Amino acid sequence: AYQRTAHDFFFSDALREELQRKSEASLQVLPNSSLPAHIDHFHSLVPLDTTNQKNATIFGYPSWVYKAVSSKDGHIYALRRLEGYRLTNEKAIRSVQSWKRVSNSSVVTIHDAFTTRAFGDSSLVFVMDYHPLSKTLADNHFGTAGRFQGRPSGPHVPEPVLWSYIVQISSALKTIHSSGLSARLIEPTKVLLTNKNRIRLNSCAIFDVVQHDSPLSMVELQQDDLVQFGRLILSIATNNPAAIHNIPKAIEHVGRLYTTELKDCILWLLSPSNPQSAKGIDQFLGGIAGHLAANFDYTLHYDDQLHTELNRELENSRILRLMTKLNFINERPEFAQNEQWSETGERYFLKLFRDYVFHQVDAQGNPVIDLAHVLTCLAKLDAGVDEKISLVSRDEQNCLVVSYKELKRGVDAAFQDLLKASRRT
Amino acid sequence: AYQRTAHDFFFSDALREELQRKSEASLQVLPNSSLPAHIDHFHSLVPLDTTNQKNATIFGYPSWVYKAVSSKDGHIYALRRLEGYRLTNEKAIRSVQSWKRVSNSSVVTIHDAFTTRAFGDSSLVFVMDYHPLSKTLADNHFGTAGRFQGRPSGPHVPEPVLWSYIVQISSALKTIHSSGLSARLIEPTKVLLTNKNRIRLNSCAIFDVVQHDSPLSMVELQQDDLVQFGRLILSIATNNPAAIHNIPKAIEHVGRLYTTELKDCILWLLSPSNPQSAKGIDQFLGGIAGHLAANFDYTLHYDDQLHTELNRELENSRILRLMTKLNFINERPEFAQNEQWSETGERYFLKLFRDYVFHQVDAQGNPVIDLAHVLTCLAKLDAGVDEKISLVSRDEQNCLVVSYKELKRGVDAAFQDLLKASRRT
Ligand SMILES: Nc1ncnc2c1ncn2[C@@H]1O[C@H](COP(=O)(O)OP(=O)(O)OP(=O)(O)O)[C@@H](O)[C@H]1O
Ligand SMILES: Nc1ncnc2c1ncn2[C@@H]1O[C@H](COP(=O)(O)OP(=O)(O)OP(=O)(O)O)[C@@H](O)[C@H]1O
Ligand SMILES: [Mg+2]
Ligand SMILES: [Mg+2]
Repeated sequence: AYQRTAHDFFFSDALREELQRKSEASLQVLPNSSLPAHIDHFHSLVPLDTTNQKNATIFGYPSWVYKAVSSKDGHIYALRRLEGYRLTNEKAIRSVQSWKRVSNSSVVTIHDAFTTRAFGDSSLVFVMDYHPLSKTLADNHFGTAGRFQGRPSGPHVPEPVLWSYIVQISSALKTIHSSGLSARLIEPTKVLLTNKNRIRLNSCAIFDVVQHDSPLSMVELQQDDLVQFGRLILSIATNNPAAIHNIPKAIEHVGRLYTTELKDCILWLLSPSNPQSAKGIDQFLGGIAGHLAANFDYTLHYDDQLHTELNRELENSRILRLMTKLNFINERPEFAQNEQWSETGERYFLKLFRDYVFHQVDAQGNPVIDLAHVLTCLAKLDAGVDEKISLVSRDEQNCLVVSYKELKRGVDAAFQDLLKASRRT
Repeated sequence: AYQRTAHDFFFSDALREELQRKSEASLQVLPNSSLPAHIDHFHSLVPLDTTNQKNATIFGYPSWVYKAVSSKDGHIYALRRLEGYRLTNEKAIRSVQSWKRVSNSSVVTIHDAFTTRAFGDSSLVFVMDYHPLSKTLADNHFGTAGRFQGRPSGPHVPEPVLWSYIVQISSALKTIHSSGLSARLIEPTKVLLTNKNRIRLNSCAIFDVVQHDSPLSMVELQQDDLVQFGRLILSIATNNPAAIHNIPKAIEHVGRLYTTELKDCILWLLSPSNPQSAKGIDQFLGGIAGHLAANFDYTLHYDDQLHTELNRELENSRILRLMTKLNFINERPEFAQNEQWSETGERYFLKLFRDYVFHQVDAQGNPVIDLAHVLTCLAKLDAGVDEKISLVSRDEQNCLVVSYKELKRGVDAAFQDLLKASRRT
């Protein structure tokens, strides 16, 4: 049970590598950038856009995304800047307040919005959660080159992935519509893929500010959310951002590649509401309940896997704490002449144990560098098992047989002494 | 960004403590128990029942639960033993095969079933996943004393918890019924609470063996699953295992404490099916779709939290790897006379760095035992930052100023040398 292999400890499985890369991406800075040093209480701006093109089609203003650090809480945020926006109606920017209360795992959380001249113009900035190394659905499915063409002849997205997207966006709309709001924009470049098959709506609140005076009622806006939702799924399913320009052809394409259930689902979303049957997110959820249940089960499976991963890492934490104690204890300069640590002293076996763990050599005298050995020894030491080991003195003249239980007692006693000494005034 | 506090490293937050306790529970053994040393390919049996009472009411045979280790794969399993069962029909035990393919996060996975005489009688043993430190819903809601009385006047279970249970059991039944099987038993002592608000059906497959020749058709058995489901929710909602003996009174109790939606949900489950409207798990899922979506969102939130936890632990792993390298490098007996490690050698600064990290003393010469200092230094070393530090020789005569970047290069070079030496034949 204490046996560890270097493989299960140091083997960088996909999750570890991914978390490591995301951690590095989060910490990235651009010291010599031409960006302003401060925007409101944010600093260390790093651009996140993958192209330099000013694209004003989506919002009516060129939009830029930056990673930035807040000097208020030290956390990292994503800032979306709409260039050239002039605030004409105070009420517009106050609509962001309602969005601060929207908490859904499939919506990128909105924290704030403010205007600024720090970029040299009049800009509107939205403050959102930062999701390191995320891509847009457009980049993921249409490719950065194919933003406008897509890949209609490429391999089609597996149906379970589409249902997973459908379930997540439905969850987002359920929360948004229940809060009396509407997403206003559901479009492949504005949905973020933050983890494997995890998506989040990334442009909430924006139109509530820049198109504050919409002639449409909230009911109409929410109905339009469902239509935009249907169009998004249609374009992903056909690998084609332009699918919405020929919907019958796209539907036919879907009919050839996917189940009738999926096709009907898209058709339902695209169809106009009528007085006979209510068309809202609640009805939609009822229709996809089987997929809700399946995806619920998948995420629980994933939780279980994360717990297993955490268990492994927690054991590493305990080993780290123990190794730190050993390093505090051994080789202290002030004990170099101390009797306890001499070859006849009672602490001597802790030095020999350190050699046993870290300084093994083979028959030719070559060093043995074996991580699994280190981890297994320390796991046994941590548990204080009864197993005995033979510790050999450096001159190979003496051999001590000692159990991990005794070693553990020795480590604890030596560490307690150190702590006592550290508290002397 | 590299600053660590001992608090965020060693502070045992609730999740860490829970995982630690579960890990210890998993490893528990009972060396002097009177249980058989081996059952089939399992060993190290530890009883999990909380009472010694033989209870044959549920299965018709006294049942016992043990934790055991498999000698085939070294993993831990839960074994449920039905005492005194005699296998009369080979087909009965083969029904377990279908259950091996059932994979749902809300069902305790069944791995195998076999008969054995190792307990001194004829017993039937089911092999299942082991969930450390889990309780039954009965123990959790009725208390171990109140197994038969419950706590009708105690605080009632919050409605969101009930919906969470409903969603999880629905997910289980969706998978089970889709596989052409039925749960056969849904009862508070046979539903396991494995984590906060995480439940799993814990008695699948058993009646398929011991009541193999049921007069009921699969459709009828699946209908009965829904009725048992309704009764379970009713007894949990009324804090009363005996609620099912007076259903009208229990329903009235629910009506006073909970929403009409919940009451109607329970009534639907309890009502007999009729030819006019289909009554099955699919219809049920459609009716609770909003709750499916909400619970789906909660589990995604939890995933996000687990990722944050993992991030923290992964940094500890990297620090552990680095500390191990330092320990491999420093104080090797075979280098004791080596020039590189002498006070004028190029490896010397690595010894001084080790002292800087682990062997600090205060003005009075007392040891400084500061975990945060250790972690911060190693995090900086791992990142190879530009920050410079002053390393003082043991005789305090010399002072070296060096950056973490240079230190990192030194560690990597020394470790590479060691690896090369370790591969010499
Ligand atoms: N909240 C966020 N957190 C982290 N990264 C983000 C976030 N929002 C966007 N990004 C990153 O910024 C990049 C650009 O996002 P953006 O929404 O501007 O899409 P785009 O493809 O540039 O579309 P457009 O042409 O409309 O600007 C994305 O590819 C993504 O990597
Ligand atoms: N799969 C399992 N993994 C881990 N522990 C389990 C598992 N199944 C049961 N247990 C533990 O065994 C204990 C007893 O379970 P059991 O199903 O026998 O319930 P019980 O309360 O003893 O009911 P009964 O009186 O019917 O035996 C539970 O409280 C639980 O802690
Ligand atoms: Mg952009
Ligand atoms: Mg029992």
